[in-house]
Amino acid sequence: MNERVREILGWYTSDNPGTLANLARLLNHGRLGGTGRLVILPVDQGFEHGPARSFAPNPAGYDPRYHFELAIAAGCNAYAAPLGFIEAGAADFAGEIPLILKLNNSDSLAGGEPCPAITGSVDEALRLGCAAIGFTIYPGSTLRNVMFDEIRGLTEEAKRKGLAVVVWSYPRGSGVSKEGETAIDVVAYAAQIACQLGAHVVKVKPPTAHIEQAAAKKVYEKERIPIATLAERVRHVVQSAFGGRRIVIFSGGEAKETSAIFEEVRAIRDGGGFGSIIGRNSFQRPKKDALEFLGQVMDIYAGKTK
Amino acid sequence: MNERVREILGWYTSDNPGTLANLARLLNHGRLGGTGRLVILPVDQGFEHGPARSFAPNPAGYDPRYHFELAIAAGCNAYAAPLGFIEAGAADFAGEIPLILKLNNSDSLAGGEPCPAITGSVDEALRLGCAAIGFTIYPGSTLRNVMFDEIRGLTEEAKRKGLAVVVWSYPRGSGVSKEGETAIDVVAYAAQIACQLGAHVVKVKPPTAHIEQAAAKKVYEKERIPIATLAERVRHVVQSAFGGRRIVIFSGGEAKETSAIFEEVRAIRDGGGFGSIIGRNSFQRPKKDALEFLGQVMDIYAGKTK
Amino acid sequence: MNERVREILGWYTSDNPGTLANLARLLNHGRLGGTGRLVILPVDQGFEHGPARSFAPNPAGYDPRYHFELAIAAGCNAYAAPLGFIEAGAADFAGEIPLILKLNNSDSLAGGEPCPAITGSVDEALRLGCAAIGFTIYPGSTLRNVMFDEIRGLTEEAKRKGLAVVVWSYPRGSGVSKEGETAIDVVAYAAQIACQLGAHVVKVKPPTAHIEQAAAKKVYEKERIPIATLAERVRHVVQSAFGGRRIVIFSGGEAKETSAIFEEVRAIRDGGGFGSIIGRNSFQRPKKDALEFLGQVMDIYAGKTK
Amino acid sequence: MNERVREILGWYTSDNPGTLANLARLLNHGRLGGTGRLVILPVDQGFEHGPARSFAPNPAGYDPRYHFELAIAAGCNAYAAPLGFIEAGAADFAGEIPLILKLNNSDSLAGGEPCPAITGSVDEALRLGCAAIGFTIYPGSTLRNVMFDEIRGLTEEAKRKGLAVVVWSYPRGSGVSKEGETAIDVVAYAAQIACQLGAHVVKVKPPTAHIEQAAAKKVYEKERIPIATLAERVRHVVQSAFGGRRIVIFSGGEAKETSAIFEEVRAIRDGGGFGSIIGRNSFQRPKKDALEFLGQVMDIYAGKTK
Amino acid sequence: MNERVREILGWYTSDNPGTLANLARLLNHGRLGGTGRLVILPVDQGFEHGPARSFAPNPAGYDPRYHFELAIAAGCNAYAAPLGFIEAGAADFAGEIPLILKLNNSDSLAGGEPCPAITGSVDEALRLGCAAIGFTIYPGSTLRNVMFDEIRGLTEEAKRKGLAVVVWSYPRGSGVSKEGETAIDVVAYAAQIACQLGAHVVKVKPPTAHIEQAAAKKVYEKERIPIATLAERVRHVVQSAFGGRRIVIFSGGEAKETSAIFEEVRAIRDGGGFGSIIGRNSFQRPKKDALEFLGQVMDIYAGKTK
Repeated sequence: MNERVREILGWYTSDNPGTLANLARLLNHGRLGGTGRLVILPVDQGFEHGPARSFAPNPAGYDPRYHFELAIAAGCNAYAAPLGFIEAGAADFAGEIPLILKLNNSDSLAGGEPCPAITGSVDEALRLGCAAIGFTIYPGSTLRNVMFDEIRGLTEEAKRKGLAVVVWSYPRGSGVSKEGETAIDVVAYAAQIACQLGAHVVKVKPPTAHIEQAAAKKVYEKERIPIATLAERVRHVVQSAFGGRRIVIFSGGEAKETSAIFEEVRAIRDGGGFGSIIGRNSFQRPKKDALEFLGQVMDIYAGKTK
Repeated sequence: MNERVREILGWYTSDNPGTLANLARLLNHGRLGGTGRLVILPVDQGFEHGPARSFAPNPAGYDPRYHFELAIAAGCNAYAAPLGFIEAGAADFAGEIPLILKLNNSDSLAGGEPCPAITGSVDEALRLGCAAIGFTIYPGSTLRNVMFDEIRGLTEEAKRKGLAVVVWSYPRGSGVSKEGETAIDVVAYAAQIACQLGAHVVKVKPPTAHIEQAAAKKVYEKERIPIATLAERVRHVVQSAFGGRRIVIFSGGEAKETSAIFEEVRAIRDGGGFGSIIGRNSFQRPKKDALEFLGQVMDIYAGKTK
Repeated sequence: MNERVREILGWYTSDNPGTLANLARLLNHGRLGGTGRLVILPVDQGFEHGPARSFAPNPAGYDPRYHFELAIAAGCNAYAAPLGFIEAGAADFAGEIPLILKLNNSDSLAGGEPCPAITGSVDEALRLGCAAIGFTIYPGSTLRNVMFDEIRGLTEEAKRKGLAVVVWSYPRGSGVSKEGETAIDVVAYAAQIACQLGAHVVKVKPPTAHIEQAAAKKVYEKERIPIATLAERVRHVVQSAFGGRRIVIFSGGEAKETSAIFEEVRAIRDGGGFGSIIGRNSFQRPKKDALEFLGQVMDIYAGKTK
Repeated sequence: MNERVREILGWYTSDNPGTLANLARLLNHGRLGGTGRLVILPVDQGFEHGPARSFAPNPAGYDPRYHFELAIAAGCNAYAAPLGFIEAGAADFAGEIPLILKLNNSDSLAGGEPCPAITGSVDEALRLGCAAIGFTIYPGSTLRNVMFDEIRGLTEEAKRKGLAVVVWSYPRGSGVSKEGETAIDVVAYAAQIACQLGAHVVKVKPPTAHIEQAAAKKVYEKERIPIATLAERVRHVVQSAFGGRRIVIFSGGEAKETSAIFEEVRAIRDGGGFGSIIGRNSFQRPKKDALEFLGQVMDIYAGKTK
Repeated sequence: MNERVREILGWYTSDNPGTLANLARLLNHGRLGGTGRLVILPVDQGFEHGPARSFAPNPAGYDPRYHFELAIAAGCNAYAAPLGFIEAGAADFAGEIPLILKLNNSDSLAGGEPCPAITGSVDEALRLGCAAIGFTIYPGSTLRNVMFDEIRGLTEEAKRKGLAVVVWSYPRGSGVSKEGETAIDVVAYAAQIACQLGAHVVKVKPPTAHIEQAAAKKVYEKERIPIATLAERVRHVVQSAFGGRRIVIFSGGEAKETSAIFEEVRAIRDGGGFGSIIGRNSFQRPKKDALEFLGQVMDIYAGKTK
């Protein structure tokens, strides 16, 4: 096994061989296999924003097989989606790419304090041949304890059954301001919580230089924690994830200029981030463009381009 | 096996043979057997609106056996009803028509945010010889997560035990306006959610050209999604259900002019819809009229009439 | 077996022999055994209204054995009561009369939206040698889904374990007016719901000619459903219970003039009702009077008196 | 076996030999063994009021062993306490006195509608060698259904596993006034509810002559139920507990004049009450005084003093 | 075995050998092994306050291995942390120090009535080789019953599976004022509740001389309970924990002057407290300073310095 992958697996000494093997599958698959970096294709926007907002820009994406094909062709490390999308291709593409079953999902047809619905199970992930479960928590929601307790049970079961655990940690809800959702202190805190809950891989949003909480602001200033550049902030978030001993990846966020994304990816790479999880910016482009785009992102992570 | 049925079953490669066999039973039964189209008789109005509003127009319908006989005589693909109605005929008509046990139901004696009561179970469906379970979700209700979590568990159990899953996806509740309940964006979204939750068959209402959500409106306009005619809207909804790789059927709605229904059915057929689920418009007519009416609907789907 | 009992059992073809045998026990026991009519003694008033209001008028009733003796001596088809009262005599009177364990009960010491407490279980009913479980639902309460889900589970378990299910269906709560609790449309609806939930025997209150719901009123008028006399209303309620293919019995209500009760019983009989469940009007009289009173009620049902 | 004990056990014919044996242990132990009367030492005040308010008046009581010793030395029928206190002596005093594990407890550090926390289980009671479980219900609380459902499950389990069930039935909460908590109609109702829930032994407070509920007042007046003296009220409460066929004991309440307590005990005895459960009035005195005090109480019950 | 340890184990005679062995491990490990005193390193601040506020002052602490090393090097009796932190070192430091898995944790990103999230399980504690589970209760919170019921179940399971139970009992929530959280009556009450819930080891905050509850104030004054000095108050709290027959340790609280801490530790020692649990004051210093600091604390407990 590759030295870097061996090193990363060495951070998870409490896990059983089944889980380590699945973590290794994520790390060894695709164009970035063995580099310790990951680019994952997630497609939960159909559930979260509805089909037209998600797939009309590139209607091939209405068909769930498209995303399997895209992720495989691009050489992504893994493909993550809710139950229906995974079921619709898991047999046809069996063994071609590691799968992550998203076990909870939000929709945008009704409001209320944020808390996703449970839409899958560990046994469903096993049935469908997945390497990992995915789960979203919303620190900052008054319903956070519900989510923390859910992931607690799912994590225990997943680890017992040999799966890896990927946690989307997105601060949201009455406890944080809109600006605070991506504040550096809040994002670092969200990463810490996901790690303490037992996640193997944590996904957060790229943090801004805003500091949300007064008590944190004092410490950032007193200890002069460097947060001026995105690379510095990524470094701080990675440090906040058990001193760099957990895999932290970053979301791509809303569709934006390609050059802006590349810049962001470079900062993540330079700050020691482990990779990106890029949905809309991938599957909303024509396939050819998406493959080229994802190839360039991977090249940045692989250090093949500046 | 018929080529079209084989093609449709080919969309469900994650399912086990038991579930595929039950899907095949639904698709192969009755006058439309083998066409890939379905007409299903649902009778849950006794629970939803009370007995007099449901059965007084054709009092033969008070007797649960009537609906079995009607569905069989008309050559429907299946008959769907709550526990009591299914129990009252499952033995007498054993093996004569595929049955769908509706596992949740609403009543109209009390209000509150919409969320049906659970009134059956997967084991009850097995005991009564059903081919599928039926379940209603109300996207747009603040209680949607309750329903999504319920159907998640029931779907997992039904698939493990070899049953098919039919989801009634009816937007309703504080998240959507009255007009929005049948808005094209909302109906397409409701179909997507049902598919992501693992439904084999999705039932929605025929959508109007209204667009409910501002964020969706932008996309429909920018991408020029055709929604002017009902056939176009049906096509969009079917596309929204995994690019046409899930069975989507449409409700008949309130009793109305027969000619209006036939027009609607033609639009569903022309838009690529898989069929209709017609309750009140069937069982509230005298049996002879109902048989003729359902025969004509099936002829439209079978392409025997324009 | 008696022809009429055989006919009634023929309505329950989905049930297993154990449940059919217990239904037969209810139908074959006592003075009305074999007539297809039932008179049941229920004593849950101690829980519902407190001991003094229930038993002070005839203090022999404080002792739980009294009610077993009364029901047996009167030749009732069955005796129904909560856990404590059944436990206090089930061994002493083992095999002498079919027992119905009431699995939920309300009290009048605190308010709130109506929803009884669960006070027993199917296994307790088996342990105590009962033929059936009893359960109260309050359609019209905003908590109805709680009760419907409870009876769903209990019904499934009871049927699996060979017991019969008797449902008290009493509209009550914020969804209905006081007058509406006994409105003909609401009572018929309540009977329908109980049947759809899988009840073998349904107990409702004698309905008035009032119509509660506007949507129902239109239908009653348009279809000219006869509801002028109590016999007509009973006929409509029985029809609403699966076209007469479920056993529907009627409560006696508050203590009143004996002649008024007999008149009510005649109307129930003439309308095709299956019998009465008479509590306070039985056990609040001296035993001798109660036996005479119940004897006359049974004679009316048996057709021995006009 | 003593005749009176045999008679009392004869009221519980639905119970299995294991439970009867434990009831017999309670009735046969201590100075009142065999008389059919009981004096029980309960020490849950540490949980309910805090340690200083409970034990500072007699600091020996901080040590849980003290209460075992006191109950044994005084010849009580049983000792009742929450998990921690029972655990702290169950092995040291194994077999020396029947134990009752209190399975729920309230504290006075926070408010809200009254509902105790569950603090033990039937299996814990078995592990610790207890003869019975104890449980508090608050009829009159809007959360009563929670408590009724809890005790329902615990009672079923306890009886299956051969334990006896002691229910503290204390009206409290928004449904009753402060004065109503000890009103004769309410206390009698509370006793009835506990019995209907399946309690073997019921503990209530000595009732006053106040009548809380209007509907009850009418009956008490019409039926001229004698409630002028405490003995009469006790007699009415005992009658309300299944016509005297359930064991009803009375709490000692707040610490008060010794002579007042003796007077109360005489009234309980003369009214046919089965005994007392006396906490603070016992363990807040110096041990010597407490032994003398409890001795006199037992003498009253034993009929050795007037 | 050491005499003092044997004496302490003698207070837990209801526990099985597995649990006693784990209690002995806690008491026998480290520099204070065998003295009956404990100093425990807890690191849950990452979850409770976020990573920067916790670890920026001494960035080595971002790495979970640091705390294992610190606790081992300092000769602490045990190391306590949430799931993630324990998982990140349990294998690497297997057998080097007794571990306490904190099973619930609060965060400071959202508000609401205090109630921690469940973040671990007894089986996780076993999997990770822990000697004990840790659990926080907030007496004074309106959600206290939730926590009490959770710890009830966890305690029963932990004891059955041979683990010890450490309860953090921190009054907090709408039932107590800010000042009341450390009031002597409230802290003593919190210790009592934890003991009654079955805790082997109780952790409370050093109490002030403030008395929160009026009913308690009367007793403290009447009984002249000495609470003027911290040592006296510690003595009262230890007495409130079953007359000194439960292990009570004290938290270090917010970072403060070292001399102030030593003074506090002396008072705890002199008042008969069993030790300290010191987080931020340990791991927020450079390692060398922390080792010296912890060494001095242990020397005070060991009686090696005044």
